[in-house]
Amino acid sequence: MRIAIIGFGGVGKALIKLLIDKKAELLNEGMDLKVNYVIGSKGGVYDSDGIDLIKFMDYSLKNKNIFEYPCGGSKDVDFQMLLDYKDVDTVIEMTHTNITDGEPGMSHILKSLQNGFNVITANKGPILLQYNKLKKVAKQNNVQLGIGCTTGGALPSINSGIIELAGSKINSIEGILNGTTNFIINEMENNKTEYAEALKKAQDIGIAEKNPELDVDGWDTATKLLILTNVLMDENKTLNDVNIEGITKIKYSDIQEALNEGKKYKLVGRAIRKENGLDISVKLEKIGPENPLYVVDGKNKAVKYNSDTLGDLTIIGGASGVTPAAASVLRDLININRGFKYII
Amino acid sequence: MRIAIIGFGGVGKALIKLLIDKKAELLNEGMDLKVNYVIGSKGGVYDSDGIDLIKFMDYSLKNKNIFEYPCGGSKDVDFQMLLDYKDVDTVIEMTHTNITDGEPGMSHILKSLQNGFNVITANKGPILLQYNKLKKVAKQNNVQLGIGCTTGGALPSINSGIIELAGSKINSIEGILNGTTNFIINEMENNKTEYAEALKKAQDIGIAEKNPELDVDGWDTATKLLILTNVLMDENKTLNDVNIEGITKIKYSDIQEALNEGKKYKLVGRAIRKENGLDISVKLEKIGPENPLYVVDGKNKAVKYNSDTLGDLTIIGGASGVTPAAASVLRDLININRGFKYII
Repeated sequence: MRIAIIGFGGVGKALIKLLIDKKAELLNEGMDLKVNYVIGSKGGVYDSDGIDLIKFMDYSLKNKNIFEYPCGGSKDVDFQMLLDYKDVDTVIEMTHTNITDGEPGMSHILKSLQNGFNVITANKGPILLQYNKLKKVAKQNNVQLGIGCTTGGALPSINSGIIELAGSKINSIEGILNGTTNFIINEMENNKTEYAEALKKAQDIGIAEKNPELDVDGWDTATKLLILTNVLMDENKTLNDVNIEGITKIKYSDIQEALNEGKKYKLVGRAIRKENGLDISVKLEKIGPENPLYVVDGKNKAVKYNSDTLGDLTIIGGASGVTPAAASVLRDLININRGFKYII
Repeated sequence: MRIAIIGFGGVGKALIKLLIDKKAELLNEGMDLKVNYVIGSKGGVYDSDGIDLIKFMDYSLKNKNIFEYPCGGSKDVDFQMLLDYKDVDTVIEMTHTNITDGEPGMSHILKSLQNGFNVITANKGPILLQYNKLKKVAKQNNVQLGIGCTTGGALPSINSGIIELAGSKINSIEGILNGTTNFIINEMENNKTEYAEALKKAQDIGIAEKNPELDVDGWDTATKLLILTNVLMDENKTLNDVNIEGITKIKYSDIQEALNEGKKYKLVGRAIRKENGLDISVKLEKIGPENPLYVVDGKNKAVKYNSDTLGDLTIIGGASGVTPAAASVLRDLININRGFKYII
């Protein structure tokens, strides 16, 4: 299988490391993977016989500009070259998330599918904005679109909904989908601190961004929830359909009050089918120990489905970091190789 | 897809009801299913064009002997007939579990695979005793063997290990795999009763069997744990390799003591890779809220994996009853139809 990796940040590097470390296991699966392209923002690396990953990894750890890599690096190696040469089977799209128009990932994914390449993406933007269109194009071109990394990284949220609830109708989706906010609330609980202090700690140790709005105002949770809803409940909703609340107004006294009731505050994304339509929200909620989401602490994430024939299914996990994120991209790649059709 | 159903108990009936109820959704997946055989212990029903499921269901709800069904019922419809005619693609094996020699399921599964039929089974015996052999035969004959229903019914335990941890190495498996024992312990907790009383209640409401040894002595947990271990950790262990403890000696005072520590007793099946080999046990353990298994109460089940690249993954669910069990068989059928290769 010939691969192109587009977007060479932390997850891209971790993926190449995994492909090196797991080479024997992958060969054992019948997967002789050749990475023909690694494309960054200013150029990339190309080798029609597959890039020597160990040498390239060594270089890229020491040098920032991969287009200067002596064995195939060039400013001319870009996405257009890949479209011209058409010498890959699968494109792994890992550029940054943009929820306004999805670019540049949107064009990469769309054109890749149109050209008959499978796509695996960790990029939430295009999936949030145009999943149904992309699915249709994938189907028309008889290729696969793996999006397992877009809704919680290592947490197999979307794939569990597709695979483990196959044949079942999902009535509701409930999830703790953002590790940063869960960490901040948990910090307040454990250290009896106020929001600002807990946020600062999360920023100091690299869990929260300097501009944390996407996380703390609930947008990241809403984005993941919407992808789950549109894909698994066959809907076509947008962020305008979600009632979004963040965590910035929570006080330690609220948390203390919840703890006194034996409960914990969590930022819960929820989509429920009701008689008058779908109700989609992101809200701070007090959760008691009767709900499995109660045990989801720290940076952990979880999703809970209710279905018609298979009952409740809760998935907790989703280790944070670039390696688990890369491993979740690799998981989609393996499952597509095993013949699984995410798009039917 | 032409199907044979072997074993017509509660789950078999529920499966036929699901095939009727979900017909439109299945057709939408491109699955035009024809049930050519339903085989019970004294005979069966055969129709080379597919049995009319609505009529047959109606008959079988009112009549015990399906071999007397006027449209194709006969004492001569048996597994041998299916082998002679070879007019099915997939055999669904649901005869009773026998962990001594696996029969009659073992022969049904083995011969079906040898004859080029996919097999989906809910029967733990053959999988416990001969998974590696059956896997080899499936591979040689280029067919699939779906065993998702053997380790907790609706709980997608084994399939999550195969699919959601694809590309990852599993270091440990930990699970609450038996709903009956979990219910009994939970009853003792909630009603401050002793073991004998809680067992009697479980028996009265049909959760525990009259002869409850398989459950309460830990054998059912051990069987499921062994299947998970052998399949997911590529081992070949037997019940002799498992250190098994049941729940019969637990006292309310033990439970009270655990509750005072903020913990709960659970019957935990556990397989851990250690330096000197694999440690496999079924034991009563005190679990605190830092472990996601803490919230698994009543008849619920759960499994927790630790992996090298995807971290911890906990799956909680597994609604009890014949419909969820049948739905988990249907899930394997759909995923095989979607191209997924459980056997690679």
